[in-house]
This record gives sequence, structure tokens and C-alpha cells, in this order.
Amino acid sequence: MSPGAPERRILGLDPGSLVTGWGVIGVSGSQLHALDSGVIRPDRKASLAKRLCQLHEGIGGIIAAARPDEAAIEEVYVARNARSALVLGHARGVIMLACIEHGLEPHEYSANTVKQAVLGSGGGGASKERVAFMVKALLGLERIPEPDDITDALACAICHANRREVPG
Amino acid sequence: MSPGAPERRILGLDPGSLVTGWGVIGVSGSQLHALDSGVIRPDRKASLAKRLCQLHEGIGGIIAAARPDEAAIEEVYVARNARSALVLGHARGVIMLACIEHGLEPHEYSANTVKQAVLGSGGGGASKERVAFMVKALLGLERIPEPDDITDALACAICHANRREVPG
Repeated sequence: MSPGAPERRILGLDPGSLVTGWGVIGVSGSQLHALDSGVIRPDRKASLAKRLCQLHEGIGGIIAAARPDEAAIEEVYVARNARSALVLGHARGVIMLACIEHGLEPHEYSANTVKQAVLGSGGGGASKERVAFMVKALLGLERIPEPDDITDALACAICHANRREVPG
Repeated sequence: MSPGAPERRILGLDPGSLVTGWGVIGVSGSQLHALDSGVIRPDRKASLAKRLCQLHEGIGGIIAAARPDEAAIEEVYVARNARSALVLGHARGVIMLACIEHGLEPHEYSANTVKQAVLGSGGGGASKERVAFMVKALLGLERIPEPDDITDALACAICHANRREVPG
């Protein structure tokens, strides 16, 4: 950590209807490092409402434990069908709610913006593998995080860290 | 009210990304009556996350005040585009969460099921006006509720009341 540089903690979120990835990174000056990460997998046998409750509680618990200063969430790619977008929207809604309830306004980034932030301009169409490799490199991790929901969440947090360094 | 028939209170919900209608009906034997109803309109100038928070708090407040025994929510018609389904999903997610947090498992009914419950078989394709007329008649209201988000919420509650009377 750079001497005197206060650490900012950023929570990245990759919402999914079955699996939600999350990752918290620390930002000290231009240095980034991973603090914690994981996935929330609500009980697939439970009702949608109960799964949403588990997801909401899970995110709330993570925020309470990791105490991030900011939150970033992936925008959803909605080229698939309206039914899956609807279900995913439910999950994203309770995740955003948990952020706001803990004083965090979730910043939204498209998948392409996240890729470009991690890989540089022209990275918008990059493969998941290239993104994962760069997340590992940027955070100084020993291995690529798995499952890729975690990689995507960490990439989103990195994107937010970089976007905040260059306002506008 | 039929003597000795305990009143069951049912909350009906018609979620929307801009306006959410709600209505609470009382059921005493075969008698239905409207107890309270209204709409929640989150501040359109606020961020999505803050609007979801207002909606979640609004539903929680209604449940705390009206103390329904059961909740029914309209399934979403997703023939439109995936983007609007996604946004609507966010609203629906926090509404379902508020129900579960108050011990109410929200029962989901399609728009056609609701129409048939209000109008009888063959009512699936009925106009909004016919549904509104029947909601007014079934609940003994002096006038048709406005806006139609309230009518739809009350129709959903009526649907749940009728479905529960004839199990299966």
C-alpha cells in the first residue's frame, strides 16, 4: 500500500438468477488488490420469493462484513429472451436494494465497458479467458478465480476503480 | 359479514416499473369487500436503486398497516421487449421480497387466470373495462377504482380468494 494512501474498498457484483458473483477489492493509489470474493447460490428448490430473500440477505451480510465504500454492478445483456431478462431483473432488484439499504448507490457498467476497463480500448469483444487473465494480473492473484461469476464481479469492481480515477 | 366467519385479508399486487397498484380485500365466507387500495409511484427522478428502495418500503408499510393474511401478485406478460421485462423484474423482485419479509409467500397468477377468475371461464381475452366493471360489482364498490393499476391489483386479490375456495 502506498504510504498515506487511504484504502478504498469497492464491491463488484455480477447478478445472476441462479448464481451471483461478488468480489471486494482494495484500492490504494494506483494499486489494486483482492480482499474477498465468492458466490451466492440461493436454494434452487425454494420459491422465487424465498430465493430473492436469500440473495438479499446474502448481499447484506457481505456488505456488513466487508464494509465496501462503493459498489459496482454489471448491467445486463438483454439480447436473450424477455422471460430470462425478467427473472434476472428480480435478482438484480433485490441486490440493488441491499446496496442502497447499506448506503451504497450501485454504479452500473455494461459488460463492454467492464472489458474495456480491464483490457484497454478495443477490449470490448474480448473472450472471457482474456478478461480472467487480466483480472488475475491486475489484482496479483495466484490463480484465475472460479467460477467465472467471481471473475466478472472482480472485473466490475476494477472497472469502477479505474473509472473513478479518470473522471468524465 | 357472515356470523362466525373469520375474515381473511388478501393483498393483491400489480407491479409496474413506474406505478405499482395494490389493494387489500376482506373475505368472509363467500363475501368479498375492499378494505384499502392505492398506488406506489417512486420518484421518477431518483436512481433505479432508490426507486426500488421506495417501492420496497412502500409495500412493507402497506403490509404492516393492512396486515393481510395472504398475498397475490400478477405474473408479468413478457411479450414486449427484454429491456422492459428486465426493468419490471427489478420492481417485482423487491415487491416479492417485501412480502416474504413479512411472512407472506406471494402467490402468482397470470393475467388470463385473473380475468377468468373475475369474469368466469371464457373471460381470458376480456377488455380492461369488463374486468373493471366486475371488480366493482364483486366488491360492491360505488365506482370503478382508478387508476387501473388498482383495479388490476384488486382483481388479482379476488382471483386468489376464489382459487382458494375451490382447491385444485
